[in-house]
Amino acid sequence: MVSIVDGNAIKFGKYDNRVEELGARAALPLIEKHNDIDFVIVSNSYSGEFNAVSGINNLITTLISIDRIPSVRVDNTSGSGGSALLLAKGVLAMGFRKVLVIGVEKMRERQTRDVTKTISTLLTEEESKVGFSLPSIAGFVAMEYMRRYSAPRESLAKVAVKNHYNATFNDKAFSGKVLTIDEVLSSKPVIEPLRSYEISPIADGAVALVMVNDQESRSYDKVIYVNSMISYSSSSALGDRGDLTWMESVELASKRAFLESKTHPRDIGVVEVHDMASILEIMELEAAGFFKKGQGWIATMEDLTSLTGVLPVNTSGGLIGKGHPIGATGVAQAYEIWLQLTRQAANRQVEATKGMTINIAGFGNNAIVGVYGVEP
Amino acid sequence: MVSIVDGNAIKFGKYDNRVEELGARAALPLIEKHNDIDFVIVSNSYSGEFNAVSGINNLITTLISIDRIPSVRVDNTSGSGGSALLLAKGVLAMGFRKVLVIGVEKMRERQTRDVTKTISTLLTEEESKVGFSLPSIAGFVAMEYMRRYSAPRESLAKVAVKNHYNATFNDKAFSGKVLTIDEVLSSKPVIEPLRSYEISPIADGAVALVMVNDQESRSYDKVIYVNSMISYSSSSALGDRGDLTWMESVELASKRAFLESKTHPRDIGVVEVHDMASILEIMELEAAGFFKKGQGWIATMEDLTSLTGVLPVNTSGGLIGKGHPIGATGVAQAYEIWLQLTRQAANRQVEATKGMTINIAGFGNNAIVGVYGVEP
Repeated sequence: MVSIVDGNAIKFGKYDNRVEELGARAALPLIEKHNDIDFVIVSNSYSGEFNAVSGINNLITTLISIDRIPSVRVDNTSGSGGSALLLAKGVLAMGFRKVLVIGVEKMRERQTRDVTKTISTLLTEEESKVGFSLPSIAGFVAMEYMRRYSAPRESLAKVAVKNHYNATFNDKAFSGKVLTIDEVLSSKPVIEPLRSYEISPIADGAVALVMVNDQESRSYDKVIYVNSMISYSSSSALGDRGDLTWMESVELASKRAFLESKTHPRDIGVVEVHDMASILEIMELEAAGFFKKGQGWIATMEDLTSLTGVLPVNTSGGLIGKGHPIGATGVAQAYEIWLQLTRQAANRQVEATKGMTINIAGFGNNAIVGVYGVEP
Repeated sequence: MVSIVDGNAIKFGKYDNRVEELGARAALPLIEKHNDIDFVIVSNSYSGEFNAVSGINNLITTLISIDRIPSVRVDNTSGSGGSALLLAKGVLAMGFRKVLVIGVEKMRERQTRDVTKTISTLLTEEESKVGFSLPSIAGFVAMEYMRRYSAPRESLAKVAVKNHYNATFNDKAFSGKVLTIDEVLSSKPVIEPLRSYEISPIADGAVALVMVNDQESRSYDKVIYVNSMISYSSSSALGDRGDLTWMESVELASKRAFLESKTHPRDIGVVEVHDMASILEIMELEAAGFFKKGQGWIATMEDLTSLTGVLPVNTSGGLIGKGHPIGATGVAQAYEIWLQLTRQAANRQVEATKGMTINIAGFGNNAIVGVYGVEP
């Protein structure tokens, strides 16, 4: 088993620096404390498309003066961070001792429309040709979910209210805001029925974590254990899936993650889910087994997922409140769980000894689910 | 320890298919034989820049109908393939049982000039700004090497003659040709002093390998063992390195790879090196310890590295003879060693029980060195 022993993030937002500089800024305070990093994994998806930069892993190790250390870039679109954590576990399993995982993306030098178009290149040729995009799919699924389960429109908006609110307590978040449901519902329409406050904003961001094997973890005082880290995929062809309101990859990965870590959903005290759009938070909580199919919206309406609820979800602000720098997101989720379980979450601190992350690529094309605990 | 138990490649060349289709074509015959793949690593660097495709790992698993299997894209520019093999070792170490590694790149829908410019985005901002490119660096280093070690111009050309010749025996190679030294020296000037036959051509290509843990390998009849797989890096800032004719990352990785596998250079019967340009083959053989510093060119002149020499190098044709589809290259090197050590190399077969691959990112920004044997 592996553990997370340190972390650092820069505030998500808009920067003039180059993408590799953002990654280096997140990593540098960790490098100063850990002079024995022996492998670097950079989670990044679109440095080529957004920033005309390749070889970002080597550029970063050069900037942080660990020139000889082997490094690699790991990409799995929005799920890159989760995949990087999973591969870090593998790197430690084969004998490396201390892995630096850096998640970084720089998106705001592009227009949102341009970013959306680039990200839609992860769709199959057929579905991309007819003009699908990730937000348009989220809109379609939101309509279908509300229709099928008689979920009120407000329940989706309430996810956005909660996550923007949580972000006001996170000084690394991009979009902390105290909003009403009405303000969310009257914000700019993006794609029917979703409004701009319900879609994760594009952002520049970088997060870094230090991971070690269990045996090594004893010398650190802020340690959490990765009890399980599981990935499953689903077809990239959305038309080939049955029910688009159900994320099978999240279901499969969560079931196995609970099983492997001998954890029950009720043991989990804090969850970071992949709320690229408001509807996704509800769907993922259902697929992970926290709420019954078609009933996740009720949990949101009843405040079960708020900071003071029985299951605080996206205490960091989630993707909606924090911003969604693609390659950084999955690493940022684990960073939040590390902060929470080691009681460093300041005025958004919740009571939890076990946490969970749900990170997805595409529209659940891949899911990477982690269960973390204060005990191995 | 891990082993390679199967492999397949498509002919390197020019295709109309989409990049994910090329990867799927290389993988499909393996999927038909191995119905228990549980992890997929796609080695690819530039699908975004060259092909406007992201999420290529999921697109490929969908095409080959293994939708639920977790997958990831690994990128380390020209060293992506080596990094993918290294991470595959980690994936097996953490408990997965059978990993499919697919190396793929589709470059020929772009012009060579455009490709060179895109690849130069791996340089530091400063060195990129002054107009450096990988071929221009290779040209500079070739001049410096010849000057410093009194290496005749013909010795570099002879690498190209050998590798194009070897490629004539490889039906997957793009550029098999019987050439004379004069023909190489009178081919199109690319960058002083290098000529077009001395630079690896851009190509579309895809290769796939199946890797398992040692315990699992007994049920296969074409097995080689990865005795060691080591990676080291050097500064991305070429100006910060001392002697550019010496590849420190290759030296460090090779030394450790020999040490870990308890192998001596003289035990190695076949080597695939990263001859992005003719001069690189000579430099890498020196850095790996096969020949003394400044004397690698003599080995080429004396035919020691030919198919019938004491140390056959780039029996596949190397990058120069086979073509250099960036993300496929490192996987293709291991594929050739697998073919050679399992005696499937037909009329380019050499006698060897141990083989080696030297794969580099950038201009040795990263080196991934593998030692393989017919015994664990």
